Amino acid sequence: MDSDALVSCGAMMLQFVAEYWRSIEKRPVVANVQPGYLRQLLPAQAPEQAESFSSIINDLESTIMPGITHWHSPNFYAYFPTALSYPAICADILSGGIACIGFSWIASPACTELEAIVMDWLAKAMNLPEFFLSTGNGGGIIQGTASEATIVALLAARSRIFKEKKTEDPTLTLGRLLDQLIIYCSDQAHSSVDRAALILGCRLRKITSDSDCVMRGEQIEIAIAEDRAQGLIPFFIVATLGTTPTCAFDDLVTIGRVCEKEHLWMHIDAAYAGNAFICPEYQYLLNGVEYAESFNFNPHKWMLVNFDCSAMYLKDRTHFIDAFNVDPLYLKHAFQSSAPDYRHWQIPLGRRFRSLKLWFVFRSFGLDGLRAYIRKHIQLANYFISLISKDNRFEIVFTAAAQLGLVCFRLKNSSNELNERLLKALNDDKRIYLVPSMVKQKYILRLAICSWLADEKHVKFAWDVIEQVTNKLLSE
Amino acid sequence: MDSDALVSCGAMMLQFVAEYWRSIEKRPVVANVQPGYLRQLLPAQAPEQAESFSSIINDLESTIMPGITHWHSPNFYAYFPTALSYPAICADILSGGIACIGFSWIASPACTELEAIVMDWLAKAMNLPEFFLSTGNGGGIIQGTASEATIVALLAARSRIFKEKKTEDPTLTLGRLLDQLIIYCSDQAHSSVDRAALILGCRLRKITSDSDCVMRGEQIEIAIAEDRAQGLIPFFIVATLGTTPTCAFDDLVTIGRVCEKEHLWMHIDAAYAGNAFICPEYQYLLNGVEYAESFNFNPHKWMLVNFDCSAMYLKDRTHFIDAFNVDPLYLKHAFQSSAPDYRHWQIPLGRRFRSLKLWFVFRSFGLDGLRAYIRKHIQLANYFISLISKDNRFEIVFTAAAQLGLVCFRLKNSSNELNERLLKALNDDKRIYLVPSMVKQKYILRLAICSWLADEKHVKFAWDVIEQVTNKLLSE
Repeated sequence: MDSDALVSCGAMMLQFVAEYWRSIEKRPVVANVQPGYLRQLLPAQAPEQAESFSSIINDLESTIMPGITHWHSPNFYAYFPTALSYPAICADILSGGIACIGFSWIASPACTELEAIVMDWLAKAMNLPEFFLSTGNGGGIIQGTASEATIVALLAARSRIFKEKKTEDPTLTLGRLLDQLIIYCSDQAHSSVDRAALILGCRLRKITSDSDCVMRGEQIEIAIAEDRAQGLIPFFIVATLGTTPTCAFDDLVTIGRVCEKEHLWMHIDAAYAGNAFICPEYQYLLNGVEYAESFNFNPHKWMLVNFDCSAMYLKDRTHFIDAFNVDPLYLKHAFQSSAPDYRHWQIPLGRRFRSLKLWFVFRSFGLDGLRAYIRKHIQLANYFISLISKDNRFEIVFTAAAQLGLVCFRLKNSSNELNERLLKALNDDKRIYLVPSMVKQKYILRLAICSWLADEKHVKFAWDVIEQVTNKLLSE
Repeated sequence: MDSDALVSCGAMMLQFVAEYWRSIEKRPVVANVQPGYLRQLLPAQAPEQAESFSSIINDLESTIMPGITHWHSPNFYAYFPTALSYPAICADILSGGIACIGFSWIASPACTELEAIVMDWLAKAMNLPEFFLSTGNGGGIIQGTASEATIVALLAARSRIFKEKKTEDPTLTLGRLLDQLIIYCSDQAHSSVDRAALILGCRLRKITSDSDCVMRGEQIEIAIAEDRAQGLIPFFIVATLGTTPTCAFDDLVTIGRVCEKEHLWMHIDAAYAGNAFICPEYQYLLNGVEYAESFNFNPHKWMLVNFDCSAMYLKDRTHFIDAFNVDPLYLKHAFQSSAPDYRHWQIPLGRRFRSLKLWFVFRSFGLDGLRAYIRKHIQLANYFISLISKDNRFEIVFTAAAQLGLVCFRLKNSSNELNERLLKALNDDKRIYLVPSMVKQKYILRLAICSWLADEKHVKFAWDVIEQVTNKLLSE
């Protein structure tokens, strides 16, 4: 193994990916294989002897690629987007090539410092409150996923309430407190909130959102009063900006006021929609963010930064360090008081040099380029709306206040069962890929603009497919 | 952005890394910067306009590289190694270029299937018990870090004991149970066990290891009896193979027997040392693994697979799925009963195509090549022992039964304070980098063979530096 092998094999790999991107449109969007397909194709044991790199590359098309569901095919409209770009891939080459593990400042100062700087850049681009900047008591950290951000926020909040309650009652145990603690989120919140509650052992109450799928302060206030009357201790709420089923926005202002009054920790999960806040015209959706203790969104969804890069902001980092500080000698260093050690802000100890991805992407596209990317996806979603609106068999449902890159629709005046059959027919057709959602007892179809290659012609194609499949289904 | 940009910019990036690898020996091993250095060098805001890729590359040497602590410098002997190789970097290019998010089988079948296959390859190469193979009730999964593996194992164990105790007492609450639950690990276990206990709200008792830093069954049996007498419920133990301070190996056989008798879940953390088990001559250290419910080690430490790749094996995957199953409609798919969905086995929902790294590395080096790599590091550690043994001012301490790539030493018959001054003098000298540990009230110096470039001449150099710095210190 040497530097030359990196350059020559790396070049082969880049060519393979470039060719993949060029051919992606022609590939079936969803993998057309059966469970177990790959085991038939690969040996049962690892090879004893080294093989050439070209033999690996040669096997890719016959083994791996048939089993790929192409998230970057312009015919992929499922879930939410996941980001990809050549600068992010290049940044990962550098991250892999340096291969430092930046768990503390001294373990590679640039790794910690670049993260603080680009997270500040991002906060400023989104016009986030100043208390989220690293120059104050808060700061930004790159987590792996929004799931981890929710867990970390919940942990800090649990630690804070435990400390407070223990002052009132020194005999209090964590278990006794846990049986009283209750956290809230909307019935539209992501499943990762369920899992965070489950891991930390906290009761979770889902607040029924209104008919627009929006959770509001008054609903929470009622829930809090009921729960306090039961002897429970409300202490944490996850507000979602851009829910997974319909991209609904919880009402931060009224929720935030309740949190302030009732001493609840408000964590904001803006995993997908948060990316749009780099565009000034969407920043009004952040009104109320000033009530949040923590805020998170995923540049790895929609800001051209490859997975994983989940941007989390803390208002007061001491809550996190308090909750998480375990400090053996082999991790101590002389600069601990003057530089942040991100290991206290996250679940794992080890960490990649992920901020390079953000830095490379910011510089390669500029904020202007990133805004243009977001706006184009939103414009494509609007284009789809303009197409489907002309067909009065369909209705657009749960239109969020701000229409981003997701469109939810269904056959008007039709049963869930018929809509489910439509979804199934579309996916069996295999030309485009959508996933459904069940919202307010309504089965809906979700079309999310996902691919960086997506253009009007693809959206038109998607609509043509939907129209054809619908015609066929309804004529059966 | 297009395919051509990926190829041309990627090639520039690869050249930069190749040049970095060629020059790494000449760079100061520990970053020689002060906290805040990078903020002086970068703008306070993200650029509005796109910049050329070459301008980014041009800035790397002046901004990022001075702030790197070079984990792959052959003069780096701190912590434990972190892995790096050109096939793993190439695999990451492919993973980034496909950019699928394999949270469920359908989201990219190859992503799930390749993971199951290469984890089976790895289990077979290590001669792990058959129940850890994916073809039975268990299976392997790639976690991000050993920290996450411990949390996931603890969660599954907590879920199992809660279910069992709830059968006995249907009014039991999780909080009430948590106040009774107790988990065990050695006083030598990694800080990530403390953090897992903290997150899940479980009491942790550290078992005092013996004078060789080994935890044994009889010590745990005593602790369990004491704790049961106090009304506590022992249910989980982390046994470590290759502790961070001294690479000690807990006695799996006696611990395992106690776990079986007392119905405790044994999780094995072999983060570093586990890599050596691909060599048959070290597999005897796995004796007793058959008592484990879960087993974990990090190929990203010592098996040429770049971070992150933490290999975790489960004996019975239903415990994990039970603990973690949250299943909204948008994640359901038709193949759920016939293919594993790794999202139920891990904390995050999203996941990269990390198994490509293992696959590329297995094929590029062969098991033979990987074994040679491990053996060479162990041989270099032995070479250091041969050098230091000739100087009777030093003693090798806490020699583990199996000497892997770590050597612990100190000035013989000397105070902790003097050894601390030696460590400080070595790191102030800046030619090599070590971290200390405090074990059994003894301050010790750790020399871990870390770099893939490390050779006898570097180890000789390290010893020369240690000798010189010691001479100077002792003559002061």
